[in-house]
Amino acid sequence: MRKTLADWRPAIDDAIADLVPREIDTDYLESFFGDPTYEYDPDGIQRALSNPIWDLLDRGGKRWRAVLFLVFIEGFGEDPAEYLPYACIPEILHNGTIIVDDVEDGAAIRRGEPALHHGYGQDVALNAGNAMYFLPLKVLADDPADLPADRRLAAYEMLTYELNRTHLGQGMDICWHNESEVRATPEQYLEMCACKTGCLGRIVARLAAIIADQPPEVEEAVARYAELTAVAFQIGDDILDVENSLGRAGDFGKEFGNDIHEGKTTLLVIHAMQQSDSEQAKRLQEILNADSNTDAEVREALEIIEETGSLASARERALDLAAQARAEIEPLEFDDETGRKLREFTEFVIDRDE
Amino acid sequence: MRKTLADWRPAIDDAIADLVPREIDTDYLESFFGDPTYEYDPDGIQRALSNPIWDLLDRGGKRWRAVLFLVFIEGFGEDPAEYLPYACIPEILHNGTIIVDDVEDGAAIRRGEPALHHGYGQDVALNAGNAMYFLPLKVLADDPADLPADRRLAAYEMLTYELNRTHLGQGMDICWHNESEVRATPEQYLEMCACKTGCLGRIVARLAAIIADQPPEVEEAVARYAELTAVAFQIGDDILDVENSLGRAGDFGKEFGNDIHEGKTTLLVIHAMQQSDSEQAKRLQEILNADSNTDAEVREALEIIEETGSLASARERALDLAAQARAEIEPLEFDDETGRKLREFTEFVIDRDE
Repeated sequence: MRKTLADWRPAIDDAIADLVPREIDTDYLESFFGDPTYEYDPDGIQRALSNPIWDLLDRGGKRWRAVLFLVFIEGFGEDPAEYLPYACIPEILHNGTIIVDDVEDGAAIRRGEPALHHGYGQDVALNAGNAMYFLPLKVLADDPADLPADRRLAAYEMLTYELNRTHLGQGMDICWHNESEVRATPEQYLEMCACKTGCLGRIVARLAAIIADQPPEVEEAVARYAELTAVAFQIGDDILDVENSLGRAGDFGKEFGNDIHEGKTTLLVIHAMQQSDSEQAKRLQEILNADSNTDAEVREALEIIEETGSLASARERALDLAAQARAEIEPLEFDDETGRKLREFTEFVIDRDE
Repeated sequence: MRKTLADWRPAIDDAIADLVPREIDTDYLESFFGDPTYEYDPDGIQRALSNPIWDLLDRGGKRWRAVLFLVFIEGFGEDPAEYLPYACIPEILHNGTIIVDDVEDGAAIRRGEPALHHGYGQDVALNAGNAMYFLPLKVLADDPADLPADRRLAAYEMLTYELNRTHLGQGMDICWHNESEVRATPEQYLEMCACKTGCLGRIVARLAAIIADQPPEVEEAVARYAELTAVAFQIGDDILDVENSLGRAGDFGKEFGNDIHEGKTTLLVIHAMQQSDSEQAKRLQEILNADSNTDAEVREALEIIEETGSLASARERALDLAAQARAEIEPLEFDDETGRKLREFTEFVIDRDE
């Protein structure tokens, strides 16, 4: 019987532990990083890499990127169990970006606990996050699946391409965040999501396609599926933040109006600025720019977003993107179970409460 | 006539500007990052990437890594002018690590001006620094020198290997920095330098060897030359910091006792801890651990370092490493001018005042 999505998690964590063990010793360091010229300090590496990385991973996370990779591998007719080390590539990359993003955003909390730079110091957290950009690429050189050279080269080139776009997207997001006026167009917002979040999805899909030796049109179709799903998911996140804050699914509290407090430029904010009268727009901008906001001010901003129909519009956009994602994979004629699992990912976009 | 080392700088900066132009427009974004799915924001990318990157580059820096790469290329009998884009790879990587290191160390000043995270905000600086880890790798995919696939794959694998070791070295350094006791051995200190600084040097040398299709033993010899030179250079840096602070080449002021103030574990500190009596060792440790120090306390620490013969011992070690570096390239039978230039790099290690 084929595994369900959640069944994979323990095996994925075991594969991650093969790359970054929970306990660091000299044998691991020599086998993974090569012989030292002089002498390694395994205790230091324990504290600088393994501890922060496993702290974050053990806080949860569903390993969706690794699971989606394995779904594709299976859909392409290969045995997912043979490709577990490769499934770690997007998963470790993703968790690395989380650590770095939290430093960049000055985030306080991650998965219910202090963000890593609070517990470990900014220096350790950042270096661990950045190390996670390169640690998993070692899998391609180790080549446990004995891939031919052209596929390994294609994987490196794909990763370079997508990771460049990731930093482009993060650059756009940060830049808007620091500006005193909402300037981005809805299309630029979608591009930011496509780059920042979508590229990790594209890595998942393209890596599976490259490894399973799929033709370019299949690689591009699954990449678009993953990108569209990721963009829809990001918009879903922005919607949830507003909906929960409006009290429909939550209450006042720590999570109340997160995105408003942060002054984030979301698709909802862009839409609300365009659709509101000039006085409302000015007020929304003021609240977004303020260093701190009262609950009443946050509610005022949320109400402008709601009154301008921005929630409904964003929801429609997210559902449309999810439908586009499903349309991308339809012609690929995956088996029924793979098709069902891939559709499930796109349906999760809006229909969730966390 | 062949160019001198300094002659290359303008051409190197032009090559960097081909990768990251001073003025960002849509044409550049589309040609470098591929077509947008929706719409790019060139103004945002100008502010998020191009401005901070060029601000740092325009502050100076001798582009030694790019120059050394071109010296190797010429020594291997190729025309350096044809490989300028590849020379940017280690140079941009190096400058990216500078931005990230400054965030990790909480540095105030870089090349005489505020560190980038002070001028641009931590988020912009970090993202720009991280982007510089991937931007130059694009050269391998663009492949302006039309390299065969096996060399491009070898370059990616080499870069992954060395960049993993870079983060290992930085992890050791950070870890010691945060500890309340000097615990590292001299051999571990050298390893930290070999990883953190040496790997960038190894990238310079190995990339040139891979591109010029040199046999593995030549690639390894030039890699060792570059690593040894880099380690010697790092020890030279540590020596200069103490010497300048002891007033032999400087005076009290902003730069007085930098490494002591930061509590850095250097080869000199490790040696001084080992060679001093227990009272002196305890005092040195106290001063290194303190959140702030008076000039008198810094001078006390410097004097312990001097009295224990740590300066002389470190100088001897650096000169020995530089000699080892020269010995590595001797059997390679480079032409006279290449040999002279490569020796020049190793002689610069100690014999400098900045």
